[in-house]
Amino acid sequence: MKKALILYGATDIGPSHFCGDLLWRTGFKAPDPFFLVEIEGRTFLLLSPLELERAAKESKADEVILLQDYICRTTTRTSREGVILFLKEHKVDTVVISEDFPYALAKALGRIFSIEVKKVPLYLERTQKTDWEIDQIVKAQDAVERGMQKAINFLRGAVIKESEIYYTDGVATSETVRAIINSSLFEEGYFAIDTIVATGAHASDPHARGFGPLIPYTPIVIDIFPVSIKTHYYSDQTRTVFKGEPKKEFKDMYQAVLDAQNQAIAKIKSGADGSDLVRGVEDLFESQGYTTDATKRPIEGFFHGLGHGVGIDLHEAPRIGRERVILEAGNVVTVEPGLYYVRERDHIPQGGIRIEDIVVVEKNG
Amino acid sequence: MKKALILYGATDIGPSHFCGDLLWRTGFKAPDPFFLVEIEGRTFLLLSPLELERAAKESKADEVILLQDYICRTTTRTSREGVILFLKEHKVDTVVISEDFPYALAKALGRIFSIEVKKVPLYLERTQKTDWEIDQIVKAQDAVERGMQKAINFLRGAVIKESEIYYTDGVATSETVRAIINSSLFEEGYFAIDTIVATGAHASDPHARGFGPLIPYTPIVIDIFPVSIKTHYYSDQTRTVFKGEPKKEFKDMYQAVLDAQNQAIAKIKSGADGSDLVRGVEDLFESQGYTTDATKRPIEGFFHGLGHGVGIDLHEAPRIGRERVILEAGNVVTVEPGLYYVRERDHIPQGGIRIEDIVVVEKNG
Repeated sequence: MKKALILYGATDIGPSHFCGDLLWRTGFKAPDPFFLVEIEGRTFLLLSPLELERAAKESKADEVILLQDYICRTTTRTSREGVILFLKEHKVDTVVISEDFPYALAKALGRIFSIEVKKVPLYLERTQKTDWEIDQIVKAQDAVERGMQKAINFLRGAVIKESEIYYTDGVATSETVRAIINSSLFEEGYFAIDTIVATGAHASDPHARGFGPLIPYTPIVIDIFPVSIKTHYYSDQTRTVFKGEPKKEFKDMYQAVLDAQNQAIAKIKSGADGSDLVRGVEDLFESQGYTTDATKRPIEGFFHGLGHGVGIDLHEAPRIGRERVILEAGNVVTVEPGLYYVRERDHIPQGGIRIEDIVVVEKNG
Repeated sequence: MKKALILYGATDIGPSHFCGDLLWRTGFKAPDPFFLVEIEGRTFLLLSPLELERAAKESKADEVILLQDYICRTTTRTSREGVILFLKEHKVDTVVISEDFPYALAKALGRIFSIEVKKVPLYLERTQKTDWEIDQIVKAQDAVERGMQKAINFLRGAVIKESEIYYTDGVATSETVRAIINSSLFEEGYFAIDTIVATGAHASDPHARGFGPLIPYTPIVIDIFPVSIKTHYYSDQTRTVFKGEPKKEFKDMYQAVLDAQNQAIAKIKSGADGSDLVRGVEDLFESQGYTTDATKRPIEGFFHGLGHGVGIDLHEAPRIGRERVILEAGNVVTVEPGLYYVRERDHIPQGGIRIEDIVVVEKNG
């Protein structure tokens, strides 16, 4: 039985069908989807004439093949039939694809070959980062921290007048701060667009980017997650800051989130179960009167995952959520507890607080 | 028989599984994949708690549903089973998916429902742009032209010394010019990374971005195709310029490409067959001694498609290639003939020339 792994997708920022596995295995960046076939450890890129020369120079693939050479020998003259012919001529009888492989193509392959379906990432090694990969993420993180510092310096220099925050050009908004951060990152070769700078009701909604004037004395959530334009590695960090001394209830909420993060980070080491970390965070929050039940309405308190792997994808394995997941040395994961309240209640004010850092899992912590 | 269209993907720049159909139908941008179900014209977004509130405010969907409410009623507690339960409770028996729908999810749906597979775009109306959509593309195109003008002004201001092009800070490279263009676009809210500024051997390779010192007297291909960070509409334009008077052979080649483009644009109107346009361009090139046979080695001459639709995706339907495709009013397509030679031969010098413009197909042209 001869097995072939087959991957299909684009590997640049922007287009449809971005395939992290494909970029990881080939190191080849292309804006249009292409094929990778791996047979007994040997990798073949099947490409259009447009990409052939460049792939020969730039990719890590063992062989670079013009798909057209197979297509023109089929009756239907489609890439699909070209790939099938390639696989047949390489005596493949079983094809391994990922869960998110395009359906119609998989069906066509399934008429000729046996199909085995695997979860993403196809290359499990991707979750255990090499030194080079960690270096890419560290560089991205350095750029994030410089952007974050610029945002914080900007807010430091601003002044509160009545219920708004002013800087030299007028009212400071989410957009003002986002532009400072995103421009800083773009200049350094990183692309960040959905940078969150959210205050007030927007901060209570973990994925709202935030817009309009920033509100003093309440949490301003700043979440930065850019991708390197050159290598396509991400980093991810969140800080919650205040302009003007916040009331005690916000300080308590901030402290609870920080304690939860510290507690979780202290437990991280290879062999730790991610869901234990989540349970610890939930217990800590519950003991202080914060909600962790995502089924209640309105959704409030702590209701998202505690963290996720970061690499070629922003959100990749391992996911630290309510399901069991064993952390391994070399995992690079975020730890990002948060509390979100859409309405004021008892001792809890309206607003959202999240603190997120990225850590490398090592044998002993 | 009750049919449901089901779409799955993310709708922001950057992540995996970008789904243009999903963005088009919902107007909702999200970095993580989500579900759209359309039953008898009514659209339902199935979302995580993280996105629910924002989708209720920002999306065009008729109903916004917490997927968790279905998930928690299944035994396996997976999103897949949650979606299946939703479909069952809405008495769906046939599910319509796109060709590139994730395989494993389609298989799971196929165990319960009949499956119909459609080509992308699922929403054929996407190829016929509304006035609002054309406006987005025009705005992107305006930004492209300002970036292009900055690049050209930069080259005008530079000087040739020996075999290199110098500006105030040193040797002008592909990277210098690319940074000028990309920064200009980023400031205007557009994201362009793979902007091509290619000269010499790089210009002979239509997808090479180009790097290193620009070469005078030879074609410099500048291809700009940014996406709006706000609306996710693209534009796309290519110019080939020279620094220093080029030799006659380059001028002839440039004129041939320009003639080919003009000839093709003149034939564009609703009802025209794209492959006729391609044949016309091929005939024109062949009559002047340029190659159009993509099966020959090395691949030279004109060997890529003549154009492609532009919209939420950079490359979308209709594709103007060697296969029959009838253009319709409202299509927005590029027209981009090019000639590429990796080696000098007879009257043809080494280098690449491409000219690309974007047009709206109208009833009479």
